This record gives sequence, C-alpha cells and structure tokens, in this order.
Amino acid sequence: MSETSTLARVTVRLKRAILDPQGRAVQGTLHRLGHDAVEGLRVGKVIEFTLPGTPEEVRAQVDAIAADVLANPVMEDVEVTLEPVPASEGETGA
Amino acid sequence: MSETSTLARVTVRLKRAILDPQGRAVQGTLHRLGHDAVEGLRVGKVIEFTLPGTPEEVRAQVDAIAADVLANPVMEDVEVTLEPVPASEGETGA
Repeated sequence: MSETSTLARVTVRLKRAILDPQGRAVQGTLHRLGHDAVEGLRVGKVIEFTLPGTPEEVRAQVDAIAADVLANPVMEDVEVTLEPVPASEGETGA
Repeated sequence: MSETSTLARVTVRLKRAILDPQGRAVQGTLHRLGHDAVEGLRVGKVIEFTLPGTPEEVRAQVDAIAADVLANPVMEDVEVTLEPVPASEGETGA
C-alpha cells in the first residue's frame, strides 16, 4: 500500500440545458437583496473523499464512482479532481 | 463597465465537527458496492454565477454574498474562487 492518499473531489452540475429551479430561486433572492448583476447562477454538489493510493493509482476507480454512482449522466455533468495528501491526513474526517 | 466578467464559485461545506448524514449514507453505499477504501466522504454545495467586472472589482461583493446569504457560518465553511471570463460568455446561461 502506498504511503500517499488521494483527496478526490467530484463536482456534479446540472447540464446547462436543464432548468435549475434551486439556482433560479437563489438568484432571485440575491437580486431582491440588491445584487442585481448576478447572472447565470447554478447550484451543484461537491462530493469529497479520500482513498489510499496516488492520484494515478485511484483515477480509474474515482472516475467509475463519479460516473456510475454520484452523477446521473442524462441530467448532470461531472468533474473529477484528485490531489495527493499525506496518508495520515487522509484517514481523518467523516 | 469593464469588458470582463467574473465567474464566482462558492463552495459550501459542513464544518468538519458536524455530522454529515448525507455523506455517511453515500459512503455506506460505496462500501456496499465494493469501494471499501473510500473514507471521510462529505457532501457540499457549489454555487456558481457571473458578475460584471474583474475578480478584483467583485471580490468584496462575492465574499459578502457567500458569508451572508449562501452559507450558515455556524455550521458551514465557505470557500470563494474567482476567475475572469469574457463578458459575452459571462452573460449566457441559466
């Protein structure tokens, strides 16, 4: 087992063509509060977790998790970023 | 008015000390699917929008929006990133 862990960040966004009612509501609130120039507001999810191994070692697994479990590819786009963290740090949290 | 718009990305996460039941549930699902090594899974929100102006010009406004409207500072941590986009691109979407 590698000494390194990887912090995976999976960002899930509704596709641009799909109406985002939550984003529309938040934008409306900001406009009413005086932030009239805010445009194109969208709300997405970010799922973060750690896995033992280097980013290169875990990339295929994280891509599979993102595409098969965390996002709905019909409605959503998914973006994966990976960064190494010391293994001890990767085991804290949750 | 500047020719540049700024894409603001506000990431809102539950503070580490606060239990994240949604994250716990997703992690449990991943474990049952065989991804046993996934640890510390947390689910957050990402709110993205555009504003006219350069990142320097809009930073104070976005910080205020993030702290006062988009996050609950008692329960949540908030992270703001700003990147310039061509103004025409910034006006599309939502």
